[in-house]
Amino acid sequence: MQLNTGVENMGRIAVTDGMDEKTIAFLESAGHELELRHHTFEEILDGSLAIFDAVVIRSATKLCAELISASVTKDGGIRFIGRAGVGVDNIDIDAATEHGIVVCNTPGSSTRSVVEMTIGHLLSSTHNISSADRSLRRGEWAKKDLKGSEIGGKRLGLIGFGRIAREVARIATEFGMEIHVYDPYVTEAPGSIQMHDEIDGIFQKCTHISIHCNLTEETRHLVNSKRISMMPGIGLDGSNCGNHIVSCARGGIVDEDAAAHALESGALRTLALDVFENEPYDGSLIDHEGFHGSPHISASTIEAQSRIGLEMASLLVEFFETGVTSTSINNIQ
Amino acid sequence: MQLNTGVENMGRIAVTDGMDEKTIAFLESAGHELELRHHTFEEILDGSLAIFDAVVIRSATKLCAELISASVTKDGGIRFIGRAGVGVDNIDIDAATEHGIVVCNTPGSSTRSVVEMTIGHLLSSTHNISSADRSLRRGEWAKKDLKGSEIGGKRLGLIGFGRIAREVARIATEFGMEIHVYDPYVTEAPGSIQMHDEIDGIFQKCTHISIHCNLTEETRHLVNSKRISMMPGIGLDGSNCGNHIVSCARGGIVDEDAAAHALESGALRTLALDVFENEPYDGSLIDHEGFHGSPHISASTIEAQSRIGLEMASLLVEFFETGVTSTSINNIQ
Repeated sequence: MQLNTGVENMGRIAVTDGMDEKTIAFLESAGHELELRHHTFEEILDGSLAIFDAVVIRSATKLCAELISASVTKDGGIRFIGRAGVGVDNIDIDAATEHGIVVCNTPGSSTRSVVEMTIGHLLSSTHNISSADRSLRRGEWAKKDLKGSEIGGKRLGLIGFGRIAREVARIATEFGMEIHVYDPYVTEAPGSIQMHDEIDGIFQKCTHISIHCNLTEETRHLVNSKRISMMPGIGLDGSNCGNHIVSCARGGIVDEDAAAHALESGALRTLALDVFENEPYDGSLIDHEGFHGSPHISASTIEAQSRIGLEMASLLVEFFETGVTSTSINNIQ
Repeated sequence: MQLNTGVENMGRIAVTDGMDEKTIAFLESAGHELELRHHTFEEILDGSLAIFDAVVIRSATKLCAELISASVTKDGGIRFIGRAGVGVDNIDIDAATEHGIVVCNTPGSSTRSVVEMTIGHLLSSTHNISSADRSLRRGEWAKKDLKGSEIGGKRLGLIGFGRIAREVARIATEFGMEIHVYDPYVTEAPGSIQMHDEIDGIFQKCTHISIHCNLTEETRHLVNSKRISMMPGIGLDGSNCGNHIVSCARGGIVDEDAAAHALESGALRTLALDVFENEPYDGSLIDHEGFHGSPHISASTIEAQSRIGLEMASLLVEFFETGVTSTSINNIQ
């Protein structure tokens, strides 16, 4: 009789891009059946996910309409797509909705990590922290060549003003930066933050810019040569600090060729990217001393992964118990 | 007649470790005679500074008692030692006082830069920003090996609680850190900061420690194997974040051999140093992935150098006009 107790609340879950160990242990102890392995495009097209009830992905698995169709059958297949993380541009939400599949992400779990990474990249690039470390490891003492600049007393432009950008704004203000924001979906901002109606206004005003929007057709290559050339180079405080761009958002928003040219010409003094148009990245930005890169690790902290895992686990438990979740991207109830 | 106008207010100034261009132009336009070149120990011992009225140094010139004696004559020699920067451990203050020489530094000018560098090093090391950049430049995509940790939710211990540490405390609090302080010269601290009577208390409590004291016989090798081994490794928030030490203060406070062993054993997960016992640094810390170094550049920003130069220029002008300065290290009036 025990076998029947709540057995309908258990699910077969494909975890294609890895999962925090504590979360695996929690879900397995709750009776769910987990398979942890990556599925290729061809495998999914052949229906490899259709034997599962749910799939949990990160950014490495791309679920286009074709693969979502291949993952459902007449009387079964996946009913839940969990994105362990924030960005859902790797999931065709409309296709999922059409098939009645609930799509959930874990939007708040990585905020603190990404905020810290954004400020870390901003300070590391303006103060030459990574290039200093490289020169020391080459056996050089490049003190004279590594004069940096302060972020205090400068204008920081934020493209997009969601959860992460708001925290970046709060902390950057404490460093003495003046905050400028462009976000067509936001009309009011707290305190002394200056809102702009036109994105070009951000580039014309700000020596420091951080990207916090989603990747859409509208935002692709939003940071291009023309806009970089508008940046003032001279800080609000009058210092010749040059121009600096940071992105821990999504690859493809910054036109990488344009940014490389700008580093070459001096139009940009530094560029810090945690995300790239094609990952793994193997382009030519690394030829520039002013480039500071990281391999999409802004949410790769012990704490964020643990929070993401626990949030996803609670969504899965809720879904298998009730058939719906209290929050979902596509509002399926 | 013009020649006499204020000619007694002009001085011959030796600038041994470089000076901001705007400051040079300002002092020369005010009629002072500047010589910009480094003087070796032997030259100074032979009296090379005794033909000047004032000397302005940074950290590269060491003015011990012997060299100070060699720089004064029965009826002349230097009457003013300016330290363009903060630390005066390279000047024998007692010897200067004995000879009636005014010693001035520019304590506030580099605060903002050093605060930014300290937080930058803290974020860069805990989030693997420099190691990520290195791996990208080697053509690797080391996303899986670069899991970092958040500073939010952790305890930050500050050794020394002067101007820079107070600003670091203020900003670290905004990141969600709990601040602990040891400073035998300070009894009260603002807000929620926890003061400790014993330095060991800081090491026992804090996974993150930043050094902000002077180098004295008392503080030399204050960070040693025994104290590192007291650090908890597990953060206030329960995460297995490891232990992290940052110093942008003075070389020699951290025992570099002890720190290298701690990086090797895992007792320290990261160590970020802007200052070293012997500079230029060419030791073995660079063999450790958890080490993040920079060549004494925390005050090397456009803005700090400009402020330091202007503050030193105004002290020199005041000195040559009045024979004293409103502030000096050795209170000579």
